[in-house]
Amino acid sequence: MIKFRILFIAILFQFLSQHCEASNGYELWLGYEKMNNPVLQVKYQSVFKNIYLPQNSNDKTISIVQTELKLASKRIIGTTPQFVDNEKNAQLIFKIDTANKNIGQEGFEIISSVHAGQKNIITLSAKSKFGLLYGCFELIRAMQMQKDPSALHITSTPMLNIRMLNHWDNINRSVERGYAGISIFNWHTLPDYKDKRYYDYARANASIGINATVVTNVNANALFLTHEYLLKVKSLAEIFRPYGIKIYLTARFSAPIEIGGLKTADPLNDQVKNWWKEKANEIYDLIPDFGGFLVKANSEGQPGPQNYNRSHADGANMIAEAVAPHNGIVIWRAFVYSNEQPDDRAKQAYSEFTPYDGKFNKNVLVQIKNGPIDFQPREPFHPLFGAMPKTPVMMEFQITQEYLGQATHLVYEGPMFKEILESKINASKTVMDVLENKENALSGMSGVANIGNDVNWCGHPFAQANWYAYGRLAWNLHLSASDIANEWIQQTWSQEKQVVDTIQNIMMSSYENMVKYMTPLGLHHIMGNGHHYGPMPWGNTLSRADWNPVYYHRSDTLGIGFNRSASGSNAVAQYDPWVQKQWSDSNSCDEKYLLWFHHVSWNHKMKSGNNLWNELCYEYNQGVSGVEKMNQQWKGLQSKINPDDFEPINQLLAIQLHDAIWWRDACLLYFQTFSKQPFPNNYPKAKYNLKYYQSLNFPFAPGNGK
Amino acid sequence: MIKFRILFIAILFQFLSQHCEASNGYELWLGYEKMNNPVLQVKYQSVFKNIYLPQNSNDKTISIVQTELKLASKRIIGTTPQFVDNEKNAQLIFKIDTANKNIGQEGFEIISSVHAGQKNIITLSAKSKFGLLYGCFELIRAMQMQKDPSALHITSTPMLNIRMLNHWDNINRSVERGYAGISIFNWHTLPDYKDKRYYDYARANASIGINATVVTNVNANALFLTHEYLLKVKSLAEIFRPYGIKIYLTARFSAPIEIGGLKTADPLNDQVKNWWKEKANEIYDLIPDFGGFLVKANSEGQPGPQNYNRSHADGANMIAEAVAPHNGIVIWRAFVYSNEQPDDRAKQAYSEFTPYDGKFNKNVLVQIKNGPIDFQPREPFHPLFGAMPKTPVMMEFQITQEYLGQATHLVYEGPMFKEILESKINASKTVMDVLENKENALSGMSGVANIGNDVNWCGHPFAQANWYAYGRLAWNLHLSASDIANEWIQQTWSQEKQVVDTIQNIMMSSYENMVKYMTPLGLHHIMGNGHHYGPMPWGNTLSRADWNPVYYHRSDTLGIGFNRSASGSNAVAQYDPWVQKQWSDSNSCDEKYLLWFHHVSWNHKMKSGNNLWNELCYEYNQGVSGVEKMNQQWKGLQSKINPDDFEPINQLLAIQLHDAIWWRDACLLYFQTFSKQPFPNNYPKAKYNLKYYQSLNFPFAPGNGK
Repeated sequence: MIKFRILFIAILFQFLSQHCEASNGYELWLGYEKMNNPVLQVKYQSVFKNIYLPQNSNDKTISIVQTELKLASKRIIGTTPQFVDNEKNAQLIFKIDTANKNIGQEGFEIISSVHAGQKNIITLSAKSKFGLLYGCFELIRAMQMQKDPSALHITSTPMLNIRMLNHWDNINRSVERGYAGISIFNWHTLPDYKDKRYYDYARANASIGINATVVTNVNANALFLTHEYLLKVKSLAEIFRPYGIKIYLTARFSAPIEIGGLKTADPLNDQVKNWWKEKANEIYDLIPDFGGFLVKANSEGQPGPQNYNRSHADGANMIAEAVAPHNGIVIWRAFVYSNEQPDDRAKQAYSEFTPYDGKFNKNVLVQIKNGPIDFQPREPFHPLFGAMPKTPVMMEFQITQEYLGQATHLVYEGPMFKEILESKINASKTVMDVLENKENALSGMSGVANIGNDVNWCGHPFAQANWYAYGRLAWNLHLSASDIANEWIQQTWSQEKQVVDTIQNIMMSSYENMVKYMTPLGLHHIMGNGHHYGPMPWGNTLSRADWNPVYYHRSDTLGIGFNRSASGSNAVAQYDPWVQKQWSDSNSCDEKYLLWFHHVSWNHKMKSGNNLWNELCYEYNQGVSGVEKMNQQWKGLQSKINPDDFEPINQLLAIQLHDAIWWRDACLLYFQTFSKQPFPNNYPKAKYNLKYYQSLNFPFAPGNGK
Repeated sequence: MIKFRILFIAILFQFLSQHCEASNGYELWLGYEKMNNPVLQVKYQSVFKNIYLPQNSNDKTISIVQTELKLASKRIIGTTPQFVDNEKNAQLIFKIDTANKNIGQEGFEIISSVHAGQKNIITLSAKSKFGLLYGCFELIRAMQMQKDPSALHITSTPMLNIRMLNHWDNINRSVERGYAGISIFNWHTLPDYKDKRYYDYARANASIGINATVVTNVNANALFLTHEYLLKVKSLAEIFRPYGIKIYLTARFSAPIEIGGLKTADPLNDQVKNWWKEKANEIYDLIPDFGGFLVKANSEGQPGPQNYNRSHADGANMIAEAVAPHNGIVIWRAFVYSNEQPDDRAKQAYSEFTPYDGKFNKNVLVQIKNGPIDFQPREPFHPLFGAMPKTPVMMEFQITQEYLGQATHLVYEGPMFKEILESKINASKTVMDVLENKENALSGMSGVANIGNDVNWCGHPFAQANWYAYGRLAWNLHLSASDIANEWIQQTWSQEKQVVDTIQNIMMSSYENMVKYMTPLGLHHIMGNGHHYGPMPWGNTLSRADWNPVYYHRSDTLGIGFNRSASGSNAVAQYDPWVQKQWSDSNSCDEKYLLWFHHVSWNHKMKSGNNLWNELCYEYNQGVSGVEKMNQQWKGLQSKINPDDFEPINQLLAIQLHDAIWWRDACLLYFQTFSKQPFPNNYPKAKYNLKYYQSLNFPFAPGNGK
C-alpha cells in the first residue's frame, strides 16, 4: 500500500512537472521547481509542517513572507504548511530579535537545531521584518541548493546599505539602452492600475536583497516631479514598500524653470532653494520613505550647476538640503564630461570631482561608474575609487548590455563585476573596501537595469543572471561569480549535475570570450556610433573627437592604443603610485589593459612571444573559438533540456558566433590597413572585405531612443 | 482501494491546479484547464486513448495537430494519448478525405459514432491538412464547452477565404494605435532569432481560423521591401506556414523611388511596372506562398497613383499584375481622404471608389472600413458595401480599441461587429451577404490587431476576447456575439455557471454602455486630438476642419448633429433607397444614428417623450450606470476568481467608471454651453467645471507614435 502510494505520487508529480514545464521566463529564478532529492524532501517537509510567524497578520511584509513560504513549500516539496500561533508548536520559527548582535538591521540568522525526539527546528531571526523577508528567501534558496536543513547555520548582513537599480526609463516608456521591450512602468495607467508585474518586480528584487530603485532615466524629464506624476510614483512606492524597496527619482536640474516657473535654476538662488524644499515637502507628504534624488548634471547636455558657474558640490548640496529634513539623500553622478574637448575623456571625472572631496553635505553620495570611460567590455577600475576619502561613493555598474552584445549575446557579468570589485586601488585596499565604507552609514551600489516588458523581463534568457548576480553581489561583495552562477542555474534551469556544470562553464567563459572578440588587449569604444551595436573601429564622422572610435584606438602605421602614460595624456597618474607601477610601462603593463594605457608598435613583443599584430589576431580568434565552444557545450545539453527552453539559446548562440566572427573580421581587416602585416598562417579568412563591413548600417538598432 | 485512488487523484489534481493557477494571460484562450465534469471526462479519456493521424510524421502541420492533442488531453482530461498506426485501433481518427462534399478546402467534419461494444469513435475528416488543424481546435473547443463526445456532429467551412489580421506595426517596433506594449515582431533579431512568441501567435490564430496576416503598418516603410528585410519576413513566413497562415506586406507606393532608385512611382511607367514585377519575383523566390500586398494610397499623406494623376484602379492593377503570376493578390484600402477639405468626409470613399467598380483586376480586393468615418464607437455601415457589385470587397474592422477606451476599458466588440455585419444594405441583403461574395473566390475580412508584447498580448485582459471574437466571426459570420463570448469565457475564465453568466452579462452590456458614455445618439469623433484618448468635443485647433471634433458634432444654439440628409451634405443618398428611408427623416431616423445624419434642435422630441437635451443627458448617464453595474457584477465574483486574476479587472473597471463619468460630465458641460438648458432634476452634479476638463492634456497617451 505504501509503495503503491509512493509510485502514485511519483507518477502524478511527473504529470505535474510536465504540465508546468513550459517556461517562458516570467518567473525568473523564482519558479521553485520540485526537489528531486527524496531524502532532503522528507526533511524539509518536516521543517515546513508548522511555521510560526510574528503575530502581525496585518503587516504586509509578514504576509509576503507567508505567501512565499506557502508557494515554495507547495512547489518544491509538495506540501502545504500550517501557520501556528505558538512557536512551541512550530518546526520553523521566524522571530524579530532586536538584540541579536550577530546581524545588522537588514540581516538575518538561520540556525538549525535538532531537539529531543530528533525534531529538526529551524529558527530564523532578524532585527526587522525586512530581515525576515531576506532570510525567508535565503532559506528557500538553501532548499533549492539542496542544503541539509538539519545543518543550516547562516548569518548574513548586507555589506552595503543602498542596493539599487537605476532604470533608464523614459516617460513614454522607451528605455535608453533597453533591449527587453519597453519600460515595465506604465505611467499612463498609473496610479490606478497596479500591474501585477510591479509586485513581481518587487518580489524578484527582494529575493536578492535589492532595496532601492530609481524608476526614471538619468537623462531626466522634469514632468516626473509634477504633482500628477508624483501620485503615480506614490502608487509604485506603496507597492514596493512591503518588499523593503525605497523609490528614488532622477531630478532634472532645470526643473525649477521647466515646471516651477522660475527664471533660473541657480543653486545659490533663494527661490530655487525654496522650490526644491517645497518640492521635497510635497514628495515626502505623499511618500514618507522616499529615498531621494539621483542627479546627472552637466554631462552629455544635461543642465547642472555649472550652467550658473557653480560647482557640482553647490548643486548637490542645495538639493541635499531640501531632502535632509526627511532623511532623504542625493546621489550625484560622477559621469561627466564637459562641452570642451578634453585631451583625454578618461581623466575628466577625476579632475572635476577630486577638488570637491569633503565639500559635499553628509547626505550626498557620489556615484562612480566602474571604469573611467563608459561601461566598456573591459576597463580598469575608475581612478576616483579611493581618491575621495572624505566622500561616500557608490559603484555604478551597467547590467543592461549596451556594449556587451545587447540582447543577443550570452555574457555573464559576474566575473566583470568581481574583476572591478577586487581590483586593488593601492597596496592594501580594494575597490570593495572603498565601497564598504565602514565609517559611514552611506554606502551603496547601483546597477543600470536590464529590465523591460518582455515576457522574460530581460530579453536574452541569460540576462536574468546578470540582474541576479548584481543583486547578490550588492548584498555580499565577497560572493564568487562562479558560486552565484551556480545558484542561479539551479534555481532557473536544473539541479542535474551535468546541466549545472555545463551551463556554469558556459557562463564563466562568456565574459572573457566577449572581451576577446570585441575589444581585446585594452581596446575600447570601437562599436557602432549611437546605438553601439556591432563593430565600427573606423568611425570618425561624429562632431566631437571623443565620440568617435578612432579617438580611442588611435591606430596608425606605427601602432595602436591610447597613450595614457606619462608620455601621453598621463591618465595613469590619477591612480595610486602602487597601481601606476603596474600599468605605466608598456613592457610590464598587464596586457589586458595594454592598449588602454599605451600606444604600442605593431611589432611590440608580447609575453607570448608574438608581436602585437599577431597577438591581436590570436586574441580575436580565441574569442570566436570560445563562442564556438559555448555552442558545442550547449548542443550537448539538447537531450537534457526541454525544446522550448533549449532552442532559443541555441539560436542566440548561433547569432553570437556569427557576431563574434563579424567583430573579428571587421576589426582586423580595418586594423590591417594600419599594421600592413599579413594574417598569421592558417588564420581563418574573412568572408567579406572591409568595404562590406563598413557598408553595414543599422538605423533601427534598439536602445537608441528611435 | 479504488476509492482511495480516486481521492488521491482528486487531491493531487487540486494540488496541480493550485500550482498552475496563476494566470498571467500569456496562454490566451488556450490554457486548457482541467475538466470538472467527471462523466464527460471519462468519455473523452476513452476517445483520446488511441488516435490515428494521417501517416506523414514529417509534415509540420500534422505534427502541430499531434502536439495540440497531447497537450489538450493531458491538461483537460489528464491522460496521454497513444498515436497508433492503424485507424482500426483508434477511437479518434483524423483523415484527409478530398471527396467529402459537405465541406470546403479549409473545412472539416467531425462525426461521432457508437460502434459495437459501445465504443465511441470520432472521425474528423478534412480536404486538407489545414482542415484537420482547424478541426482539431474545434474538437478541443467542444471538450471545453462540455459537449458530449458521443453526440458530436459538426460540419464547418469558413464563409470567407481571407481571414486576416492587420498589424499597424512599425519597423522600430512602435505600434500605431497599440495599447499592449510594442510590436511582437522584433525585426532587429530576425531572421535568426525565432522567438517562441511567433509560434504561439500563429497557434492562437490557427485556433480561431485566422489564415492571413499583414505584419507591417499601412502607413508603410519601403525598407520592408529591401532584401535584408525580406529575409526577415521569410523567417516569419516559414514559422506561420504550418499553421495555415500566409504573410502579406504593406506596399509603400513610392518604394520604387525610395529603395529602387527610380525617379517616379507612376503606375503607368514601364520602369515602375518592371520594378514591382522584379520585386514580386524576388519575394516569391523567398516566400512561395506570399499572400500579396495591402496598400494605403493617397490617404493621410501616403503616396499613391493620384500623385501622378492616375486612378486608384491604375495603381492597384499595376501592382496586381506584378503578383498575379504568383497567385498573389492586392488589397487596396478604400479609407481615403483627399488633401482638399470635403463638404463631408463621410462621403469621400464612396465618391472616389464607385466610379472604378469593375475596373480593378481580378486579383484586387477593396478593403472597406466598417463605417464611413473611422472606427467610431458606433457608425452606420459603410455605403460602399453593396455599391461595388463588380468588385470583391473586404471588411476592415478595428480590433484595437483606438476609440473604444484603449487598454483600460472593458469593451467587448462582438456586438459591434455583428451590428455591422447584420445591417441591411437594401430590402433583401445584408453586409454579410456582400462579404460572402459567393460568385467569387476572393472574399475576406481584416481586423486591425490589438496585439503587442505585453505578457497577456492585448493589454486589457478582456481585449483578448476581441481578437477571439474577430477570428471566430471571420470564420462564421452567423455566430452570435453572445455565443462567442460564452466560448471565450469558458476557455479563459471558468466553466462555473455563475461566473460564466455574470461575465457574459458584463461583456454583452459593455459595448452599448461605452457608446452611451462616449458618443450616444449618433455623436462621433469627439475624442482627444491625435491620441484619441478621453473626451474633447471642444477641439477646434487642428489645421483641417475635418480633423476637429467641432466639425463632427456641429453644436450651436439651435441644436446638435451633422446634417447628412438631403438638406445637408446628403451623404444619406449614398445608401440604397430602402436604407435612405430609414434614416433620411429626423423624425423617423433610428435614434442611435440621429446625430450622425441630422442636425437636430435641442428641443427635438425623442421617442421617449424627452427633448433631445434631456435625452442626451439620460443617455450619457445610462452609460455611467451601465459601468457601475459592470463594477458591481464583477465584485460579486470575488470569491469565485483567484485574486491575481480578479484584482486587475476590478482596478480596470474602476478606471472605466472614472472615465465614463469624465466623458459624461466633460461632454455635457460643453454641450450645455450651446443648449443653455439645465440638467434634468436630480441629475448627478459634475465634480469639476468645464474649464478643468478642458485643461487636461495627455502628451504621453499611448498609441500615438510618441
